[in-house]
Amino acid sequence: MTTRRFTNEQIDRLLRPKSVAVIGASDRHGALGATLLNNLVQYEFAGDIYPVNPKRDELLGLKVYHTVADLPHGVDCAVLAIPRPFVLDTVRQLAERGCGAAVIYSAGFSEAGEEGMRDQLELGRIAAEYGMVIEGPNCLGCTNYVARVPLTFVETNMKSPPKGTRAVGIASQSGALAAVLATALHPRGLYVSTSVSTGNEAAAGVEDFVEWLVDDPDTHVIAMYVESLRRPRAFIAAARRARAAGKPIVMLHPGKSSKAQESAATHTGAMAGDYALMKAKLGREGVIFADTLEELADITEIALRCKSLPGAAMAVLGESGALRGLAFDIAEDIGLDLVHLDDDNSPELRAILPDFVPVSNPTDITAVGLSEPEIYTKVLTALLADDRIGSVVASIIQSDPITSKIKFPAIIKVLEGGTFAKPLVFAGVDEGANVPEEYIEGLRKVGIPWFPSTERAYRAIARLADLSKRDLSDQSLAPLAVDGLDAVSGVVPEYKAKELLRPLGISFPESRFAATADDAVAAAEAIGYPVVMKGQAAALGHKSDAGAVLLNLKNADEVRAAFDRMFTNVAAYDASIALDGVLVEKMGRMGTEMIVGAKSDPEWGPVVLAGFGGVTAEILKDVKLFTPDMGKEQVVAGLLGLKQAAILKGWRGAPALDVDALADLIVQMGRVMAGNPRIREIDLNPVIIHPKGEGVVALDALMLVEG
Amino acid sequence: MTTRRFTNEQIDRLLRPKSVAVIGASDRHGALGATLLNNLVQYEFAGDIYPVNPKRDELLGLKVYHTVADLPHGVDCAVLAIPRPFVLDTVRQLAERGCGAAVIYSAGFSEAGEEGMRDQLELGRIAAEYGMVIEGPNCLGCTNYVARVPLTFVETNMKSPPKGTRAVGIASQSGALAAVLATALHPRGLYVSTSVSTGNEAAAGVEDFVEWLVDDPDTHVIAMYVESLRRPRAFIAAARRARAAGKPIVMLHPGKSSKAQESAATHTGAMAGDYALMKAKLGREGVIFADTLEELADITEIALRCKSLPGAAMAVLGESGALRGLAFDIAEDIGLDLVHLDDDNSPELRAILPDFVPVSNPTDITAVGLSEPEIYTKVLTALLADDRIGSVVASIIQSDPITSKIKFPAIIKVLEGGTFAKPLVFAGVDEGANVPEEYIEGLRKVGIPWFPSTERAYRAIARLADLSKRDLSDQSLAPLAVDGLDAVSGVVPEYKAKELLRPLGISFPESRFAATADDAVAAAEAIGYPVVMKGQAAALGHKSDAGAVLLNLKNADEVRAAFDRMFTNVAAYDASIALDGVLVEKMGRMGTEMIVGAKSDPEWGPVVLAGFGGVTAEILKDVKLFTPDMGKEQVVAGLLGLKQAAILKGWRGAPALDVDALADLIVQMGRVMAGNPRIREIDLNPVIIHPKGEGVVALDALMLVEG
Repeated sequence: MTTRRFTNEQIDRLLRPKSVAVIGASDRHGALGATLLNNLVQYEFAGDIYPVNPKRDELLGLKVYHTVADLPHGVDCAVLAIPRPFVLDTVRQLAERGCGAAVIYSAGFSEAGEEGMRDQLELGRIAAEYGMVIEGPNCLGCTNYVARVPLTFVETNMKSPPKGTRAVGIASQSGALAAVLATALHPRGLYVSTSVSTGNEAAAGVEDFVEWLVDDPDTHVIAMYVESLRRPRAFIAAARRARAAGKPIVMLHPGKSSKAQESAATHTGAMAGDYALMKAKLGREGVIFADTLEELADITEIALRCKSLPGAAMAVLGESGALRGLAFDIAEDIGLDLVHLDDDNSPELRAILPDFVPVSNPTDITAVGLSEPEIYTKVLTALLADDRIGSVVASIIQSDPITSKIKFPAIIKVLEGGTFAKPLVFAGVDEGANVPEEYIEGLRKVGIPWFPSTERAYRAIARLADLSKRDLSDQSLAPLAVDGLDAVSGVVPEYKAKELLRPLGISFPESRFAATADDAVAAAEAIGYPVVMKGQAAALGHKSDAGAVLLNLKNADEVRAAFDRMFTNVAAYDASIALDGVLVEKMGRMGTEMIVGAKSDPEWGPVVLAGFGGVTAEILKDVKLFTPDMGKEQVVAGLLGLKQAAILKGWRGAPALDVDALADLIVQMGRVMAGNPRIREIDLNPVIIHPKGEGVVALDALMLVEG
Repeated sequence: MTTRRFTNEQIDRLLRPKSVAVIGASDRHGALGATLLNNLVQYEFAGDIYPVNPKRDELLGLKVYHTVADLPHGVDCAVLAIPRPFVLDTVRQLAERGCGAAVIYSAGFSEAGEEGMRDQLELGRIAAEYGMVIEGPNCLGCTNYVARVPLTFVETNMKSPPKGTRAVGIASQSGALAAVLATALHPRGLYVSTSVSTGNEAAAGVEDFVEWLVDDPDTHVIAMYVESLRRPRAFIAAARRARAAGKPIVMLHPGKSSKAQESAATHTGAMAGDYALMKAKLGREGVIFADTLEELADITEIALRCKSLPGAAMAVLGESGALRGLAFDIAEDIGLDLVHLDDDNSPELRAILPDFVPVSNPTDITAVGLSEPEIYTKVLTALLADDRIGSVVASIIQSDPITSKIKFPAIIKVLEGGTFAKPLVFAGVDEGANVPEEYIEGLRKVGIPWFPSTERAYRAIARLADLSKRDLSDQSLAPLAVDGLDAVSGVVPEYKAKELLRPLGISFPESRFAATADDAVAAAEAIGYPVVMKGQAAALGHKSDAGAVLLNLKNADEVRAAFDRMFTNVAAYDASIALDGVLVEKMGRMGTEMIVGAKSDPEWGPVVLAGFGGVTAEILKDVKLFTPDMGKEQVVAGLLGLKQAAILKGWRGAPALDVDALADLIVQMGRVMAGNPRIREIDLNPVIIHPKGEGVVALDALMLVEG
């Protein structure tokens, strides 16, 4: 089943139109309809232009139509530069007249309350009925820089990518951000293919335009600003196609902080999504995440300019010992791996460097390059040829034109032959140094991005290296059906949840359900003392708070007394809760408490959360998210990335813990979630992790099943 | 007692010399002695120049001296541009001829092994004997931009600060970094007063030059790059004077990562210091820390250009909802406080903004400023006038010259009257936008720094706001002498440490020392069961590992059996350890484990570390450092900044814990350390923190006392 709402041909009517109607065309300075019309005329839009204005007959030498009804049938695209109240009727009319696409600038829809939301839904309905591509409302329009179609009221700089140049397509939920990104990329000599701002996304969302950009021969990288993906499944499908097509997606998505999530909701009236879930899911699709606008542009530059993306580990050529220390600090800060290089493991470099310069990474070549500039060429070439290295940075003191003249040509030479696909990035350390523009252009011409500061180069490379460190292979195992699930719904009490999950290999302590005190004693005798007794009822969410967990019962008398106390405690806690009975369970061995929880998001699908349990889990959020397509090895790698992973590896003489068993449990939970869409949540908390080879045991289980 | 090694007059002979000898003067292209001589002549050094070269009679029209012996007596400063082997003898000769200062470029001293270290110590000795100021070795020299003295072989751009302009003095252990910083500041229209690179610091260190810069009327801000402060006490004294003089010190100091510390050691042969300790101590002296080179320049710019430093909380004027979310994310990331502003709490802003724009922070004024630019002036003025706000950022989409022309003048107007001392920072969001230089200059002229990206403005402001959040007041209480300390030295066993510390109000469980089984039983009877028994010997570092901690002894028989078992366990663990006896102690109540440790660094003085104990402390390093001049409130504030502070405040229905008592303990430990310089370390681990009002109890105590 396709997740696409529009064919490329339908979107072509917006992004490659042969005719454009300007509803609300004008020549009043500052009016949206004036700038728009101006853009079309000034950049010599190749198709037909139909200005619409009831009071004018001619604008910029073009015939003006008085009403939409006067327009010819089947205009490709209409741009609405008219006040909010007229939008809905106009779109309806346009749809009826066979217009294929509409751009709506006006705000005042879903972000403005109930009525706006109703009208926006109606726009969506019209789009669906007529197959009309609606961009917006509340957007800044779009520009196809290749076909030279500026459907925006922003002053546009129509820099078309020269034939054969790689270019970035922009799909943004914010028009301002789309414009800002283009403004930032153009002075770097980078090109945009097509830029679309989607605003409130009444009918067409970023995912629809990404689908189109994937197939657009003029787009090589896709840069996005997203506040909330309204159709995650459709976006995932698009991202998957982008990856298959070798077009990296770079995404800036605020929402790490809860305040940013709130802000997104008020901005375009979208629901705040679950940021961590989004990142876990899209991370698996190869999406590269930028944290700031600076990073979005910087990552895009590397993706556009270099022949391949940076690998996991970086090497640096530097010219000062002081910069070495700073490199180590920042690398640790941003999670960037510096390959370890020394005299022994790098004979090629040893042979190139002067005696007094030890091989290291960053390599401090000192000021020797000033008198022997060929050392830049040699060292960088050796680093690029080294298979241990995934990207190379030349971190250079540029100083002035004289110094630049010595260093730049020797660096440009490295890629002049075009031998290496691995990224080589030039990073200045003295931002603002007087470097003649020709040298920067020289770098760019051979595919070396120039960064004004080393910090920025490191940050952008770190984001890209993060992608190359992910094992994105699909390791899905067959989904597992839970026998007997049909019989339950809503909150499933612990004893039932354990009954359902135990056959699937989830390890729980031996236990028996008991409805009477006699049953409880019999259960304890069968299991062996000491035992734990836990009250069972769907309504009993927090057993401990209710006094419904009684530990370390050592004989029949204690079990009998506990049974009575249990009912008294629960009645005192909440008289409305009727216990089904108790679960009598073997007292488990102590151990490190982990937490494993699975959740099925209606939009994003299932995900499994795992990490350290107890107070730590809640306060430090030392947890990771895993998707059901991840195999055991990928899960183990994730677990070893927890902040307290040292505990898992065996801390201070304590034994290493059974990470394999924990990973098996996580994989199994993924299969369970994938196999039973009715399960909304499963919480195993705590899960005790024992020493290596001794497994994991879930002490509690809670399940929420769709009604 | 002064910590100064040099008077200002002595350092004047280096930084404001009336005569300069160039040892190794030359006209060979690329030779250090050539560039140096060239710099002096080109920039018309106002004093006498004495080139020294055995083979030449004249250079650049100057008379050349053949040997140092030929020089007149009492030349202010000699710059040694000669090979390493000749350095030591030459310096000796110069000292004897009354030369006041020497600059040594050559490397090959302490960073190059034993012989180099010996020669470097000899340089220090000569300097001390003759009161000679030696800069270097292994340095790039110095430049006084005000007096126009370029004693460096780096191509220098002699930008002298115009009269009345604020300027930054640079003291750097790396010559490259000093040069790079000047290169980065000059194109921003900022000025350097004097820049000194100290290299290996044989005789004069950054602290000596900071003392001079504090008194230099042409220096207003001090920027530093430091790898290892060799004389912390002297630097603290200098920093204190700088703060009193209102000259902020901005410091870039790698070493957060252990690899950076190693790198510093190999770079200039300095010992790796304790980075966290350095930061804790200097933080108390008002030093502002930059994490990257970019930040060092950015913070310096704000400190130079704004009339005062940013306060704790920031407000932002923005033009897009998308940028709001990004601002929240980055603010949370870097610990920057955004004041909460809304329609209700900000009537002035409410009155200024159009109806459809809600008051918020960042305020999203939308595109309305394009048609009503006075809104920039009004909103920014209102924000600057607001006492809740410590700094204001205008985060602006610059786009192009037309847009710039609308926005910049309205923003420049805000500070044109010079009414506000509070920092207003302009931050572009579209780096690289075509902004006519005149607008940027216009901002600068009225004291508004211009940043190319908003991220950078936020980061620099966060570092400065961090300073204003610190309560730097000296809350020292009288030092406390430990009675009986004279009788101990080396590792002090637990029972003795507790005896020594208990009278000072440190709370331990009730305990008695016992040398025999009968004594132990008597002790237990007196204290009351259950008790703990712990083996006591100075050599017994890890009691638990040795089986020398026996818990929960409930009667005389158990105590007696435990006493025997204790000796057996310890003998089996390490036959060389002879127990002094055992400590019989009341079993304490359980509670959250904290750790409190005090340490006296021979250079930095005492510091107290406190935080969460157990495995967490070691893995997550959830601890803070406190200095003895901090009072209870300051300590409480620090404790509430721990990652797991939520536990202290009462997590999920658990009671709030006795943070006051913990703070009292920390303050008390500071007083103990301050009052007893012989104490090297005290470790209280664990310290159990009980609910509010119920105090803290240290379960174990370990002391290390100087022999």
